[in-house]
Amino acid sequence: MNPTKIIFGKGQIEKISKEIPKDAKVLLLYGGGSIKSNGIYDQVKRALSGFDVLEFSGIPANPEYEILMEALKIIKSEQVTFMLAVGGGSVIDGVKFLSSAALYEGDEPWDILTKSIRTEKGLPFGTVLTLPATGSEMNSGSVITRKETQEKLSMGGPGLFPVFSVLDPQVVQSIPQRQLANGITDAFTHVLEQYMTYPIQAFLQDRIAESILQTLVEIAPRIMKNPADYEAAANFMWSCTMALNGLIQKGVPTDWAVHAMGHELTAMFGIDHARTLAVIAPGHYQYNFETKKEKLAQYGKRVWNIQEGSTEEIAKAAIEKTVEFFHSLGIDTKLSDYTKDFEGTAEKISERFSQRGWLGLGEHKTLAPADVLEIVKMSY
Amino acid sequence: MNPTKIIFGKGQIEKISKEIPKDAKVLLLYGGGSIKSNGIYDQVKRALSGFDVLEFSGIPANPEYEILMEALKIIKSEQVTFMLAVGGGSVIDGVKFLSSAALYEGDEPWDILTKSIRTEKGLPFGTVLTLPATGSEMNSGSVITRKETQEKLSMGGPGLFPVFSVLDPQVVQSIPQRQLANGITDAFTHVLEQYMTYPIQAFLQDRIAESILQTLVEIAPRIMKNPADYEAAANFMWSCTMALNGLIQKGVPTDWAVHAMGHELTAMFGIDHARTLAVIAPGHYQYNFETKKEKLAQYGKRVWNIQEGSTEEIAKAAIEKTVEFFHSLGIDTKLSDYTKDFEGTAEKISERFSQRGWLGLGEHKTLAPADVLEIVKMSY
Repeated sequence: MNPTKIIFGKGQIEKISKEIPKDAKVLLLYGGGSIKSNGIYDQVKRALSGFDVLEFSGIPANPEYEILMEALKIIKSEQVTFMLAVGGGSVIDGVKFLSSAALYEGDEPWDILTKSIRTEKGLPFGTVLTLPATGSEMNSGSVITRKETQEKLSMGGPGLFPVFSVLDPQVVQSIPQRQLANGITDAFTHVLEQYMTYPIQAFLQDRIAESILQTLVEIAPRIMKNPADYEAAANFMWSCTMALNGLIQKGVPTDWAVHAMGHELTAMFGIDHARTLAVIAPGHYQYNFETKKEKLAQYGKRVWNIQEGSTEEIAKAAIEKTVEFFHSLGIDTKLSDYTKDFEGTAEKISERFSQRGWLGLGEHKTLAPADVLEIVKMSY
Repeated sequence: MNPTKIIFGKGQIEKISKEIPKDAKVLLLYGGGSIKSNGIYDQVKRALSGFDVLEFSGIPANPEYEILMEALKIIKSEQVTFMLAVGGGSVIDGVKFLSSAALYEGDEPWDILTKSIRTEKGLPFGTVLTLPATGSEMNSGSVITRKETQEKLSMGGPGLFPVFSVLDPQVVQSIPQRQLANGITDAFTHVLEQYMTYPIQAFLQDRIAESILQTLVEIAPRIMKNPADYEAAANFMWSCTMALNGLIQKGVPTDWAVHAMGHELTAMFGIDHARTLAVIAPGHYQYNFETKKEKLAQYGKRVWNIQEGSTEEIAKAAIEKTVEFFHSLGIDTKLSDYTKDFEGTAEKISERFSQRGWLGLGEHKTLAPADVLEIVKMSY
């Protein structure tokens, strides 16, 4: 079951007028204003003509609690009944927090994150995706940052699926190279987190995951060269959505340790989310080589077409291919590429995990703070 | 968007009690009674203890209008509020017709089929799948037969998705060989109908379709040898569902001419649905070779690993491999294998299509009754 209606294709933004209740009080939310220069804002406003619409702009990358609380005030005071998120994963994740917080009855909405309160029902919202990457447009998860405490925490629940999401691949043409590279890396790593574990004879699930990886590898050079290549953009957009809409995680073990560690790097250094994943993943797969080598080799054979060598050799070559792939996008894969101030990072992250009450990371839930220490050190 | 909640795994039948409204008046519908010998009936009845339950049994393969009309009387006289279909595609398709007919306001429910009335809202129902094949457990389509007129017609609409479907791969162990072969063939052909057209750079969609085909090819010998092989059964079941739950048809051209012709063979000779597809498909692909050869070759390379030869050679070899695959399941691929009385069949089917008001078959909507005549003749 996935309740989000996907409206995919050229010129589909105008369709949102049919998806929002006519009598809705709409809050349109977006980020830093790039939608005003690329024409998406105008398309959305045209589609919303006749609706009662308020606006809230300025939701930043890594959506911040303090800023979102400003939007929450408007939602409550203006009795907003429907939200429209126009943006990438940050705007959509921010709107998911607002969807939950608008109906939350406790005193302090931050508790939704710290107490892992599942959202069964949220204020309804739709999205117009402007940046393929996170998959947030077709799932019920969200990650919110609190600057004052350097925290980055997740929330979710069945009430947080968008009612609809418009995916018009034409938006890709105005995305800067850096964001394109981030989007490809983010989606690629989302698949790896749900795939690079151990074999359990989930043949179809494995193959669908590999299909997304193969497609991203195939379209990456086309997208980086020419983001106006519509067919490549459509495959890019659909791959990002399918990478994290719940499908490929069904019935299989999942890891997510790369994200857990990566989030800390964003919180500490402000490194782009996708880039933190490219920094952590290679060391993580090397460190956990023994438990992951069968899947690493399967990935090497099927995604990278490495046919010669032992399981171990193919698995090792597959990690190298992954690093090369990130480099081909212009994504650096070492922490020292991003900051000179990296000494002590592993200790600090390991310590943070300890303090939070350790539950174990990875598909076996066995990675302890001592392992995190080693993995993060391998990223220097 | 797909609203059907899938409950997948061992021993999941008991969960249905949480999915049906407590105050529901439930009609339990099933087929010929095999669920009584394999223990599924007992599991369902246990799960339904405490509910107000009526039963209707005897829904046959190719669910018949006359029999379903008997069930409709019970639904109306007893004010049934929820249906539970326990069976394969025939039982589920029958229940979909009832779901629509129960709320239909016209005089003659057969009109839903002949006048292609789309069902926006139906009487809610869940399913317990006992025979993986048709994918009906996660889609909103149905095919109903009327014996007196030898007609087999389709219906559908967003109101006809099951509320939930229980997929317990353990049911596969009690399925007879003939039905296992039918199920694999049916799912395989469902994918081909949505894939074997022409290339449009839908890379991810193609790869997901190929993933299902590859998985069916991989698990077929295991399933046929030992249907109690749980992992193979789980992949079989999931492949059948994914083959026709709407995912792989998104954004791509689809054919469905094999089904249109195959339905006629079932209506005329009572040949199992899946077997009619295996009879029609090879000739259909040969007849339409020029327009389909690129996809046939892609399929030959990726699914059958045929690497040597020209596009035409690989495409031809791929058709042969498909025929061999059906044979490996014990499925005959010539009409003359099923009936001695085949002379004139092509003319009769072609004539029927003419009479219905010709709209054109196939992904280009260009196949006329004269083409149908040739294709069916190739199946003799």
